[in-house]
Amino acid sequence: MAERQRDALQFPEFERDFLEPHLPPKYRADDETRRTFTTLTFATSLDSSLALLPGTQTLLSGPQSKAMTHYLRSRHQAILVGVGTAIADDPSLNCRIEGVGGYGGEGLEGQPRPVVLDPTLRWDFSSDSKVLALAAYGKGRAPYIICAKHPPDQKRVLLEHLGGKFITLNISDTGPSKGKLDWADILQALRDHGIQSVMIEGGGTVINDLLQPHYAALIGSVIVTIAPTWLGQSGVIVSPPRRWSADGTPIPAARLKDVKWHPFGEDVVLCGKLQ
Amino acid sequence: MAERQRDALQFPEFERDFLEPHLPPKYRADDETRRTFTTLTFATSLDSSLALLPGTQTLLSGPQSKAMTHYLRSRHQAILVGVGTAIADDPSLNCRIEGVGGYGGEGLEGQPRPVVLDPTLRWDFSSDSKVLALAAYGKGRAPYIICAKHPPDQKRVLLEHLGGKFITLNISDTGPSKGKLDWADILQALRDHGIQSVMIEGGGTVINDLLQPHYAALIGSVIVTIAPTWLGQSGVIVSPPRRWSADGTPIPAARLKDVKWHPFGEDVVLCGKLQ
Repeated sequence: MAERQRDALQFPEFERDFLEPHLPPKYRADDETRRTFTTLTFATSLDSSLALLPGTQTLLSGPQSKAMTHYLRSRHQAILVGVGTAIADDPSLNCRIEGVGGYGGEGLEGQPRPVVLDPTLRWDFSSDSKVLALAAYGKGRAPYIICAKHPPDQKRVLLEHLGGKFITLNISDTGPSKGKLDWADILQALRDHGIQSVMIEGGGTVINDLLQPHYAALIGSVIVTIAPTWLGQSGVIVSPPRRWSADGTPIPAARLKDVKWHPFGEDVVLCGKLQ
Repeated sequence: MAERQRDALQFPEFERDFLEPHLPPKYRADDETRRTFTTLTFATSLDSSLALLPGTQTLLSGPQSKAMTHYLRSRHQAILVGVGTAIADDPSLNCRIEGVGGYGGEGLEGQPRPVVLDPTLRWDFSSDSKVLALAAYGKGRAPYIICAKHPPDQKRVLLEHLGGKFITLNISDTGPSKGKLDWADILQALRDHGIQSVMIEGGGTVINDLLQPHYAALIGSVIVTIAPTWLGQSGVIVSPPRRWSADGTPIPAARLKDVKWHPFGEDVVLCGKLQ
């Protein structure tokens, strides 16, 4: 038990209150009508950078923010990242809040399902990839990989052996997602696999895609941590594509409503909903 | 008197407290030893944009933030902008807080000196330019224009007639400012003209230049307002040039210390000092 809890994180009760209105309603297994609640969350610098360079991980926010991220993970049934993040960061994608399964708790209670969005199956994972190794150790769940191709048998067997799976969807042939996977289809697929809440963590491609107005209705909550630093030009930037009004003038790409700012150590946490 | 105050702004006393530690010490006319206190202040979107497009003005922050900017102006002896901002925005560069000269107060009491940084004299101002018109009406001071060329007589006469002037400096021939005006020289020139505090408001070129580490010691305070909106790609971005460590890896360009975040309507105000 002591060994298991050594790397557990604490997120104090009094800090949880400000997040509560922005979190998915508590899970009820018998509620089959609800759409999957989607939280978009990420940490940036003042110049809206996620990382110094593509394919690198940059420590931006303080230890409190890290604990908050893990607390948020404990409040969602799944966490989703794009394949770029899976390849660049070899992320753990588990929850280390004290008391969840693997960190003092029973079984995998409170451990979210990692979901990797990998349409063309670029992620060459193995049993050494952190997220799979943690699943093998009972400290997290094996990932679901959402793709648009038939997966190779060897990878499928490895994944299923640990409790994960591939979910193959069709490329959209109409609308703003034409030629790509559609976010409504992705969220519906998660719902069909019993996932009622998902926290989407990145990377830049996924976030910039979801900040476009035609996806705003799919996003229940946005939680952004901002660190008081400028990473400088040529970082991995959160900034959605330019929008234009009918008369051809540029207009703001996205705006939050029901905004709350919460100073948090050296950082600030911004919670809101997409307008 | 009533006519004069019609467009005056209010910034309530209880909102002033959080700014106080970040403001220049109160002016004492007899203190000739102190360097000019420099505050860098600007408003951005979440994606660090000052404006949707170069050469346009974008309303980012709410009415409270506008009143705050004018209050900050009242607490500085000068406000400085780059020539790009002077050309794009035709800015007023005066202070409209109720009680300053021109807005209920006597003479030009509390009105900061506008300073335009225009090394190559690109700004083709006239008596119709807002800042000059306001000076003619007694609602602001005429600008000082900092340049590196001999100004044309016609402009000089117009400017001096209203109480403004050209200040001609030498281009730096060494160090990080080589081939440009050096900020230490600019601030010394302001000091030589009796200005003990200056608020630098933009635009992007000026801000990104000053966020570089070799200028950090010149900046006393940084005050950034962030609005909960993403302007989208291709805006006018605040992001200083990339920095590299000695071994060639990228490192954060700048960071603030002594950080305070102050939620302010829908926006947040960040105060700090450059590390």
